[in-house]
Amino acid sequence: MFTKETYVSRRNRLKKQVGSGLIVLLGNEQSSMNYKDNWYHFRQDSTFLYFFGIDRAGLVAVIDVEANAEVIFGEELTPDDIVWMGPQKSIREQASEIGVGLTKPLATLDSYFQHALAKKREIHFLPPYRPENLLKLSSWLQTAPASIKSMASVPLIKAVVAQRSIKTPEEVAEIEKGINTTVEMQIAAATLARAGMTEAELAGQLQSIAIKGGGNLAFPTILTVNGQILHNHYSPTVLQEGQLVLVDCGAASATHYSGDLTRTFPVSSSFSAKQKEMYAVMMTAYEQAVAMLKPGVKYKDVHLQACTQLAEGLKHLGLMKGDAQEAVAQGAHALFFPCGLGHMLGLDTHDMEDLGEEYVGYAEDQTKSTQFGLKSLRLARALEPGFVLTVEPGLYFNPDLIELWSAEKVHADFINYEQVAGYKDFGGIRIEEDFLITPEGSRVLGNPLPRNMEEFRQFAR
Amino acid sequence: MFTKETYVSRRNRLKKQVGSGLIVLLGNEQSSMNYKDNWYHFRQDSTFLYFFGIDRAGLVAVIDVEANAEVIFGEELTPDDIVWMGPQKSIREQASEIGVGLTKPLATLDSYFQHALAKKREIHFLPPYRPENLLKLSSWLQTAPASIKSMASVPLIKAVVAQRSIKTPEEVAEIEKGINTTVEMQIAAATLARAGMTEAELAGQLQSIAIKGGGNLAFPTILTVNGQILHNHYSPTVLQEGQLVLVDCGAASATHYSGDLTRTFPVSSSFSAKQKEMYAVMMTAYEQAVAMLKPGVKYKDVHLQACTQLAEGLKHLGLMKGDAQEAVAQGAHALFFPCGLGHMLGLDTHDMEDLGEEYVGYAEDQTKSTQFGLKSLRLARALEPGFVLTVEPGLYFNPDLIELWSAEKVHADFINYEQVAGYKDFGGIRIEEDFLITPEGSRVLGNPLPRNMEEFRQFAR
Repeated sequence: MFTKETYVSRRNRLKKQVGSGLIVLLGNEQSSMNYKDNWYHFRQDSTFLYFFGIDRAGLVAVIDVEANAEVIFGEELTPDDIVWMGPQKSIREQASEIGVGLTKPLATLDSYFQHALAKKREIHFLPPYRPENLLKLSSWLQTAPASIKSMASVPLIKAVVAQRSIKTPEEVAEIEKGINTTVEMQIAAATLARAGMTEAELAGQLQSIAIKGGGNLAFPTILTVNGQILHNHYSPTVLQEGQLVLVDCGAASATHYSGDLTRTFPVSSSFSAKQKEMYAVMMTAYEQAVAMLKPGVKYKDVHLQACTQLAEGLKHLGLMKGDAQEAVAQGAHALFFPCGLGHMLGLDTHDMEDLGEEYVGYAEDQTKSTQFGLKSLRLARALEPGFVLTVEPGLYFNPDLIELWSAEKVHADFINYEQVAGYKDFGGIRIEEDFLITPEGSRVLGNPLPRNMEEFRQFAR
Repeated sequence: MFTKETYVSRRNRLKKQVGSGLIVLLGNEQSSMNYKDNWYHFRQDSTFLYFFGIDRAGLVAVIDVEANAEVIFGEELTPDDIVWMGPQKSIREQASEIGVGLTKPLATLDSYFQHALAKKREIHFLPPYRPENLLKLSSWLQTAPASIKSMASVPLIKAVVAQRSIKTPEEVAEIEKGINTTVEMQIAAATLARAGMTEAELAGQLQSIAIKGGGNLAFPTILTVNGQILHNHYSPTVLQEGQLVLVDCGAASATHYSGDLTRTFPVSSSFSAKQKEMYAVMMTAYEQAVAMLKPGVKYKDVHLQACTQLAEGLKHLGLMKGDAQEAVAQGAHALFFPCGLGHMLGLDTHDMEDLGEEYVGYAEDQTKSTQFGLKSLRLARALEPGFVLTVEPGLYFNPDLIELWSAEKVHADFINYEQVAGYKDFGGIRIEEDFLITPEGSRVLGNPLPRNMEEFRQFAR
């Protein structure tokens, strides 16, 4: 929780920027696993947290810009609820703590919106990503569910993105709490990993550290000996000597700000020669990318520079050939790096992802590429002080993709498929750190964590 | 996964019992946390698992009873998905493994249902507990979302409940896997608990054991020094000497069968005299309840007997007075035990809860009480061989409830409020074990776990 003044001033700026109409921000509800009352851990909506800070299920906030009025709608607990949930703060009390004087029962929302529709008020809302909120909007606005997303308010999206993109020092401090717990998770991974244990066992240990940290996982842990599969989470697969473990994990702080760090380390205490040289190629690209981070630089250029450096390195190893810059322009490097270099980080790990990449990651004069690889770049715009973002180059040897491209001789001018064939079982490596863009350049966030995991592994044993 | 024959015979029995029409069983989708692609761990629908066994998001199964035809609708992965998800079994392959020969794209479902509606086919579906499935049914059946639940098929509900209520030996073996991991969680809780650590830290450790076990938590862990609040999960509260820790947790097996065990133990290595005598009262009620378990006995009677025994014990301690049986008939004991004695256990922890308690827990000639306490009894019907259920008596001292009742002199003929005042800070205790009803009586499931946690704590240290 931040101060009352922080929330009040965020909302005032929002009202000013949106200018008119009703702003409707929906909190999240509990999410059911296998029956209604069996819940996943509660996660409040990030934009709701940003403007209202109340970490409680089932709330809806409405800001009437013209009337300069703010209401939080929700159901207060009944005396019966005491038995099951114990004494809790009332919604009225929680609203008052963040500067909202008026609360009303949820049941009054229907007539509230009927009234607003009758008066032809503008109703601003964000694109819903949870079906229950889609259903609610559909009912209030008397519009089919399928049409709701297209009615989301662009002025509201832009106003929210403008504020949430620039992190205040208080927010950076919260992000660093998330990162510091993530550092502990990474240290535990490197310390506890042993041949014979399963990915799931190690991943469970990391989650326990995230929970101990006061939050929970910010996203499902990727912990795998098959790092070439980008969104492989974890499985009952047993770790074996000689394999690499890729760990991409993040804890959320108690206030739900996210850390996001990746390390790749050998199950054995040392890299093989082949692993070592590949790691070095990745690290050079990483260092070059980090050196470029400063206000005004387009993140797309940082991405392309990292890709070019990866291609140069692969050329040096004999896996690629020809001009590296041209190879990247044509997308040949994407066989080994089919994704983007990084993304905004904040209350969400992919910060504000559902508000639309065209608003969050791209400037108005930038269009997203359709090229394989580059189309997955989430952040392209010029950097500004206060941005927090990740830098996460990697090298992935996906045997299915290699076979596919090899059979069709895709980008054969730039790829030595004969050499690449010898890397089909290499797996995947990635490194990831989180950065704040400062007026002068950038600052890596959180407590230090060794980037050379071989040294670290030997030390830990 | 069970054998193909098991799934085929379950579906054949279902078809026979429902008799006619289309049976539509919806699998679950991924659930979004704070943006669409950031998911909670996937949990398939239990009834879908029971009849189709495929643990994959986004599937819909339709059984045409008259045509004796079964189709699984879903989207096969695209080549692009390989990059993010790696090679996966096709839906066609998975369907074939459980005896379903036909799969179709999801996009064809709309016209499938239009066709069925045009032909006025009966369409049987279960009440949806996830909003995305409600939305789908609403769209297919061209009916407002608010009307869908009331259209759920009672014949289908009854047919599903009839099968899922009686666990086969293979299912019991799976439940015991879940319970055995839960036993490990309980042992860890009692071994690791120390004054100075937070509830959250200990709860995180238990979750890591559930994940290591190959499944995950079957339900959010209740781990609290405020056990008097029935659904208190865990918090940053620090454990202190003299307090009792109540741990109610359950791991799911890899096939999603649930364990569910509760223990209450002292943070210090020994109970206080007051805690010890209260624990003894609870254990006597527990033993009496367990002794009654056998086919033909109504679980409501087991519940009432346990309540009566709790009231007797509290009378002995001077907290209650008058005739214990009469006190229970009037509901006076519910100040200390405001819930039911147990519930069915299986693929769901509260097995089949969303199919409706009137079908799962109550016989047709039994109506649910509206009395505080008794109205929360989930299982009342006569026991049958193959039922798996929990027995979980407890004693709860909820200071808010005590004040409320005391001020209004509720059941003052049966409660010594002066004495009770001295227990306002006692907290809550509970014990819970899982039982299979056998032809002769019952069998406690899973590896043994000491019920006297004081002895266990002293041994563990």
